[in-house]
Amino acid sequence: MIRAVILGHGMVASHLVVGLERIKNGDLKPYGVPFGFRELGIDFNDIEIVASYDVDSRKVGKSMYDVAVESLGDGIPIPESLKELFIKEGVHLGSVKGLPVEAVGLESRYTLNELVDYLVDEWHNYKPDVFLNMLTTEHAEPFKDLEELERVIEENDVARITATQFYAYAAAKYSREHKNAVFVNVIPVPLANDPTYVKLFELSKGLVLGDDGATGATPLTADLLEHMSERNRHVLSIAQFNIGGNMDFLALTIPEKNKMKEFTKSSIVEDILGYEVPHYIKPTGYLGPLGDKKFVSMHIEYITFNGLRDEIFVNYRINDSPSLAGMCVDLIRIGKIALDSGCYGTCYPVNAFFMKKPGPSDAKSISKIVAYHELKRFLIERGISLTTRIEI
Amino acid sequence: MIRAVILGHGMVASHLVVGLERIKNGDLKPYGVPFGFRELGIDFNDIEIVASYDVDSRKVGKSMYDVAVESLGDGIPIPESLKELFIKEGVHLGSVKGLPVEAVGLESRYTLNELVDYLVDEWHNYKPDVFLNMLTTEHAEPFKDLEELERVIEENDVARITATQFYAYAAAKYSREHKNAVFVNVIPVPLANDPTYVKLFELSKGLVLGDDGATGATPLTADLLEHMSERNRHVLSIAQFNIGGNMDFLALTIPEKNKMKEFTKSSIVEDILGYEVPHYIKPTGYLGPLGDKKFVSMHIEYITFNGLRDEIFVNYRINDSPSLAGMCVDLIRIGKIALDSGCYGTCYPVNAFFMKKPGPSDAKSISKIVAYHELKRFLIERGISLTTRIEI
Amino acid sequence: MIRAVILGHGMVASHLVVGLERIKNGDLKPYGVPFGFRELGIDFNDIEIVASYDVDSRKVGKSMYDVAVESLGDGIPIPESLKELFIKEGVHLGSVKGLPVEAVGLESRYTLNELVDYLVDEWHNYKPDVFLNMLTTEHAEPFKDLEELERVIEENDVARITATQFYAYAAAKYSREHKNAVFVNVIPVPLANDPTYVKLFELSKGLVLGDDGATGATPLTADLLEHMSERNRHVLSIAQFNIGGNMDFLALTIPEKNKMKEFTKSSIVEDILGYEVPHYIKPTGYLGPLGDKKFVSMHIEYITFNGLRDEIFVNYRINDSPSLAGMCVDLIRIGKIALDSGCYGTCYPVNAFFMKKPGPSDAKSISKIVAYHELKRFLIERGISLTTRIEI
Amino acid sequence: MIRAVILGHGMVASHLVVGLERIKNGDLKPYGVPFGFRELGIDFNDIEIVASYDVDSRKVGKSMYDVAVESLGDGIPIPESLKELFIKEGVHLGSVKGLPVEAVGLESRYTLNELVDYLVDEWHNYKPDVFLNMLTTEHAEPFKDLEELERVIEENDVARITATQFYAYAAAKYSREHKNAVFVNVIPVPLANDPTYVKLFELSKGLVLGDDGATGATPLTADLLEHMSERNRHVLSIAQFNIGGNMDFLALTIPEKNKMKEFTKSSIVEDILGYEVPHYIKPTGYLGPLGDKKFVSMHIEYITFNGLRDEIFVNYRINDSPSLAGMCVDLIRIGKIALDSGCYGTCYPVNAFFMKKPGPSDAKSISKIVAYHELKRFLIERGISLTTRIEI
Repeated sequence: MIRAVILGHGMVASHLVVGLERIKNGDLKPYGVPFGFRELGIDFNDIEIVASYDVDSRKVGKSMYDVAVESLGDGIPIPESLKELFIKEGVHLGSVKGLPVEAVGLESRYTLNELVDYLVDEWHNYKPDVFLNMLTTEHAEPFKDLEELERVIEENDVARITATQFYAYAAAKYSREHKNAVFVNVIPVPLANDPTYVKLFELSKGLVLGDDGATGATPLTADLLEHMSERNRHVLSIAQFNIGGNMDFLALTIPEKNKMKEFTKSSIVEDILGYEVPHYIKPTGYLGPLGDKKFVSMHIEYITFNGLRDEIFVNYRINDSPSLAGMCVDLIRIGKIALDSGCYGTCYPVNAFFMKKPGPSDAKSISKIVAYHELKRFLIERGISLTTRIEI
Repeated sequence: MIRAVILGHGMVASHLVVGLERIKNGDLKPYGVPFGFRELGIDFNDIEIVASYDVDSRKVGKSMYDVAVESLGDGIPIPESLKELFIKEGVHLGSVKGLPVEAVGLESRYTLNELVDYLVDEWHNYKPDVFLNMLTTEHAEPFKDLEELERVIEENDVARITATQFYAYAAAKYSREHKNAVFVNVIPVPLANDPTYVKLFELSKGLVLGDDGATGATPLTADLLEHMSERNRHVLSIAQFNIGGNMDFLALTIPEKNKMKEFTKSSIVEDILGYEVPHYIKPTGYLGPLGDKKFVSMHIEYITFNGLRDEIFVNYRINDSPSLAGMCVDLIRIGKIALDSGCYGTCYPVNAFFMKKPGPSDAKSISKIVAYHELKRFLIERGISLTTRIEI
Repeated sequence: MIRAVILGHGMVASHLVVGLERIKNGDLKPYGVPFGFRELGIDFNDIEIVASYDVDSRKVGKSMYDVAVESLGDGIPIPESLKELFIKEGVHLGSVKGLPVEAVGLESRYTLNELVDYLVDEWHNYKPDVFLNMLTTEHAEPFKDLEELERVIEENDVARITATQFYAYAAAKYSREHKNAVFVNVIPVPLANDPTYVKLFELSKGLVLGDDGATGATPLTADLLEHMSERNRHVLSIAQFNIGGNMDFLALTIPEKNKMKEFTKSSIVEDILGYEVPHYIKPTGYLGPLGDKKFVSMHIEYITFNGLRDEIFVNYRINDSPSLAGMCVDLIRIGKIALDSGCYGTCYPVNAFFMKKPGPSDAKSISKIVAYHELKRFLIERGISLTTRIEI
Repeated sequence: MIRAVILGHGMVASHLVVGLERIKNGDLKPYGVPFGFRELGIDFNDIEIVASYDVDSRKVGKSMYDVAVESLGDGIPIPESLKELFIKEGVHLGSVKGLPVEAVGLESRYTLNELVDYLVDEWHNYKPDVFLNMLTTEHAEPFKDLEELERVIEENDVARITATQFYAYAAAKYSREHKNAVFVNVIPVPLANDPTYVKLFELSKGLVLGDDGATGATPLTADLLEHMSERNRHVLSIAQFNIGGNMDFLALTIPEKNKMKEFTKSSIVEDILGYEVPHYIKPTGYLGPLGDKKFVSMHIEYITFNGLRDEIFVNYRINDSPSLAGMCVDLIRIGKIALDSGCYGTCYPVNAFFMKKPGPSDAKSISKIVAYHELKRFLIERGISLTTRIEI
């Protein structure tokens, strides 16, 4: 049994709990879960969501069922079993500032120091193995060292630390004191890319995976660039527009949040091609009616043999949140496998496939297809039996 | 020094001889040549085109310079050195039947048996290491066994054998009697997929690589499907249209030639995904003004997590012939490396990356990115030093 | 009250009866009906579907409700009121030959001559004003003259006449003998483009509108070409692919049916631009999973000022049948208006907007935006009050 | 003979003078010039560019030939006759502030009042009929009334007025005192949309046409929306991205200049559809390698009949400057026709077709196809003979 805690109960979380429950009930095929049914040796029934935290006052106290009904709309049946699971008040620390959300937050009643103990105690009851951080994109800065981080907690410096960083700090403490744990960070805040956090988890015999879940157009761009590179086509320019109507796109209209995203998105170009290419790759705007199904448009021009020019145009409609939710199912399973096999700190082979900006901070982006096969080798070395596909 | 003979002097051949010469002269970067400058340990100056054959009466006897000027049009400078190389009359056997070409052919003056000797003698003078078969797509049937093939030659059964099959037969004899040689087949006629030919080359200590050079949209489709598959997305349908204005598109308006192409193009779907998907993948039509820069349009719909549907649209303008010509440069180099390292018959690791329908006939299609890394391992095992890239 | 009869109860018919009923009930906005609510002076409640004919043995005798439930699938609520309307056996004459339909047909029990009387009698009871011909695309030839047509009926020459042509003949007779009527032909069979039929309806004080309802990509192409033409951009080539998974796409894989479609689709190019342009515009294939929502891809390249080249790529997902059904609602209303104002034979201003190949046979295609404004003037001249929009 | 003065000698101006000269020499067909050769009754040889002004220190004093060679690059032959035409120093007033241009400007040596006289005197020698304002997009505010405008000139308030507004003021004075003139404004600064300027030109018996030349994706969007509207399709959202690598895109990365553009681009949606639609329509970014050939991507989703949803995706590569230059040729001809027929102030029928934000300020945007036919009627009413096309 793997026990998971959700931090930030937005659309991704709703899709995760609903989809997972439907798969367990046999009502849904595990499409969008990379390693599917028969692989990894961990049954979906062995995954249990034990708690979820949020700061939206309209969600706190409600059941996951009610929240899912409201956010997923028609078309997706919501399992009744989710009526038993309630959303708890979490830590805010300004994470949804600027968004149309009336936020509550435990920090209004506790100092950071007290809050760490409060959460670690609560988690001691839930006994989670995995924390899934799915907050809305925040603007955050890495810490200089562990001392700075500890001083911020000690001095209750709520302006210096974001909710993500705070949750991760508490999770590390829980990992050290109670039960080894994995903290999965699927948003652009640097954790696996912050050496301070990697060290913290290493010391805590825990594992931090991140940063920024690799869904949407960016992993596709990575694989397209690998495709070009393997033919020695010389890429001249890359334009990639992203527009959507969910809360995350709204958040990204706030410039400093957008900057976080641009950073994780555009590092792939030079890493994969090996040279600099003028590019425009970023979340471009918010358009409400698109909802969670974003529109992506991409244009790549390159030089082929004999100096001629080819062009490729890609238009994409992607359901943003389910894509990430499906990845999260396997981040839970593979995170646990990695931890159990003795990976502490962070784990590049897992990050490289699942994350836009794989930690540690000095690691390169590689194409996702390459990362996938590297991950399979990593798993096989750990004795995980995978269904046979052609190995490379 | 690697000596190469061209069979079929169409646009691909013109791009090949022009581009190669410009690279040797330092006027062109080797974009579109997968392994580029520093890799493989074979300098571009070590490749020499020693002869070329065609059956178009407007080309036979002309210099490669004159033919290139006419077919490549403005914008590409044609090296003067090509004025010294002339196009020789080749074997027709109906290969351009139905096309607006006035064809000549050596078979009008010789029986097939005589022709084999004629060519092997001529090649004995040129001492080629590599034959590049670039004829226009023909409709061909594999042979039952070596006996049938030999009987066809013996009995001068010109209706049973195509030019490609005939050239390959002669090249095998040349390989057996004079110098080990590689026969590279970049058109859809089955050679590396015909066990008879694979056996023939094995017996001749030669190598046949094929079939159908993997350029255009199909390799991209292969990598897109791999991308989907690695996320366990369930593909519902694939539509891929191809339209262009070069001779090959004109040829493919002839139904039996089109069928050859459809076969090599669509085998990738089930091989990569592991299940059958309704698809429409084929050359769709001829549209003169597009010239050699074809238009490809693709639509893929799939099921993501929680049963929702995503869609991807790809529109592509690709210079068809240069793309294949760039691949041919490395088929010459890598073909020679494989032969020298003792690969006789055919060689799957090379075919898997470079070909749409990689032989032998019982081999599966794999995605091109996977094939690329398999090929690199194949080369490294043979002591070839490759520039460092992230290995998988 | 306008009374309408449906000929061919496929998906278009199902969408029409369901959508119309939902609009009448106030459950649906009349989106997709060009002149909407307030225009034309005819309320949707004044339209009544009085009968429908088909030859599919799985449909004949069933209620429109049952057929709609089966063909429209989930997502569209089917009004209960359709349980009272039943589908009658119609005339086959080979119209669905080659398709996976077990066909019945009145001609198995009657001669053509008897059948005309049978239908005219039956219609005399229903008193329709408008016939909507929505059969699957048939291959048909125009008639030399009225004598030939009458001889075919007389001699029961069932091989010479298609179901569409037969129904139209019977409708003309009904118009002459009982009640002036409009025959709306939204499939590619030439009726409004067949001078024999135009004359027949003129003599019968009836009106035939056609041919081939202008839905999908072709009207859009027409307006794009008008857009280019008004800027004097010189179009070099047009590629337009269409692929879908409904019965009509299946029918169009039968070459002679496809030819009917290509004819009506491609006449627009020269008519609008005033010069010939190489183009590929036709239904390209059948792909089941796309269902009724077809995929269209288009590429247009043109010369702009100073001899430079621009390119436009259009990708389209269109619900095929609803698009035509919405047009049919206004063909019923406007057909009746035209008839009542004394238009007999055919009526170009109506055809020009609503049809791909507007009759009469010597008429030119014009862009749809131009046709729309011409149609508005036609209506205003007949005293129809239209909501104010900018007039041109 | 129509004599024209260019204000702002950027790429549009270079394309205009080069293209016009090539057409006059018979070396180029007038593609991209809406009314082409035979229409309008004014021969291209009757248009003469008599002067051009710029503030880029690298251009002032150079011949139009030299500037064209540098800015148009290979592929377009530059007529030798342009060696006789030199670029004069113009008025800056901060119009290229923030751009990588070393600017000079007459205002460094004269007060605004002196400058007006200086220019009017100079123009008195050149005797222009038409001024073409093609400056880089500036941020400008309309004037409250003529008094404010005159006070700004009088008090030499250089911070309040932009170069465009200043040139227009001087041109109006020239029109009043010397020769009736047309001021064509193809950038987003409000002139035809500023009642002060419209009144000023009316009083000066001159004509101001504007604002913001309707090239690129916006006119196409207008016609697509008209197409949707005429079928009563209910548009849900519109996303339109624009990215390019010319000076204008660089200018639009400066937020206040971008805002000018967004304003002129997005007014079309509600005007044409008649209801508000969430949309994102604006210049999205700068990407150098795209050069003058911008990339546009558009997505429109709408409700069709029976409540179903269709989607359209448009990808566009457009040569930005030639497109506008071709329009300018006819703005010269038609501007003169309108002026000669007594149109003073501004002229909506001309603006409606040629401009993104047609003045006067209370005018609605209409679709371009509708505007085109309105313009033809306007011309016919003025006795202009147009080649026969189908009239609406």
